[in-house]
Amino acid sequence: MSPALAGDAARRRFAASRVARLATVSASGVPHLVPCTFALDGDSIYVAVDHKPKTTTNLKRLRNIAANPHVAVLADYYDDDWALLWWVRADGVAAVLDEPAAMSRPVLLLAEKYSQYADQPPAGPVIAISVTAWSGWSAS
Amino acid sequence: MSPALAGDAARRRFAASRVARLATVSASGVPHLVPCTFALDGDSIYVAVDHKPKTTTNLKRLRNIAANPHVAVLADYYDDDWALLWWVRADGVAAVLDEPAAMSRPVLLLAEKYSQYADQPPAGPVIAISVTAWSGWSAS
Repeated sequence: MSPALAGDAARRRFAASRVARLATVSASGVPHLVPCTFALDGDSIYVAVDHKPKTTTNLKRLRNIAANPHVAVLADYYDDDWALLWWVRADGVAAVLDEPAAMSRPVLLLAEKYSQYADQPPAGPVIAISVTAWSGWSAS
Repeated sequence: MSPALAGDAARRRFAASRVARLATVSASGVPHLVPCTFALDGDSIYVAVDHKPKTTTNLKRLRNIAANPHVAVLADYYDDDWALLWWVRADGVAAVLDEPAAMSRPVLLLAEKYSQYADQPPAGPVIAISVTAWSGWSAS
């Protein structure tokens, strides 16, 4: 049985990842899945929308969160040597931040992690996810 | 505006990927997300469960599919040079195959793609996804 990753060990691997995948669910129960950059702050994950949509409900992921706040975010590592595989999942509840005051800290954290965001801050909105459970698995 | 990836171009990039992520949804609308190996056959994606659970509803992803067959599968490429980013998503409907006759072709395709499966075929069951829509995006 390979070791589970949980708590701080899971959170640390997740935080160091450069990309994750965000799963949201529509009002009718259909999943939607996109890759995303993110910043982690304790048990909060921040995901920016790079190009401001005309309304905050104009993107599928934002419409889904408005209808159903449950989300999952996954970071994983793949190698053809399966002894190196691992993944970490954050399950949580999302809210959409579109007020400048609420977005300032998330945007700062994203700019610290990604030079592209330092050069050109994301227009927003920001998806703020309160993580309710960390889980994961490592092959070795 | 960066080019969208669709149809055959999306399918080709997806097929060549070594790992994807499978999103399923519980009966109560909560998403579940795990990385997965897979084989593509036309518009069918096959994902094996490596270690046979005691019942086919013993794993969260299998329980979710039994309750709600809508799934999404994502392959993506990340690089700190964002001009190289791309992703492809397959949206579809899943079924769980656990009869040896139904599993034989999926397991063969998985073994052709992954040497580990050639050495030790997955015990199953196999998740068979009928893709209803290919979508994607490439930065360049």
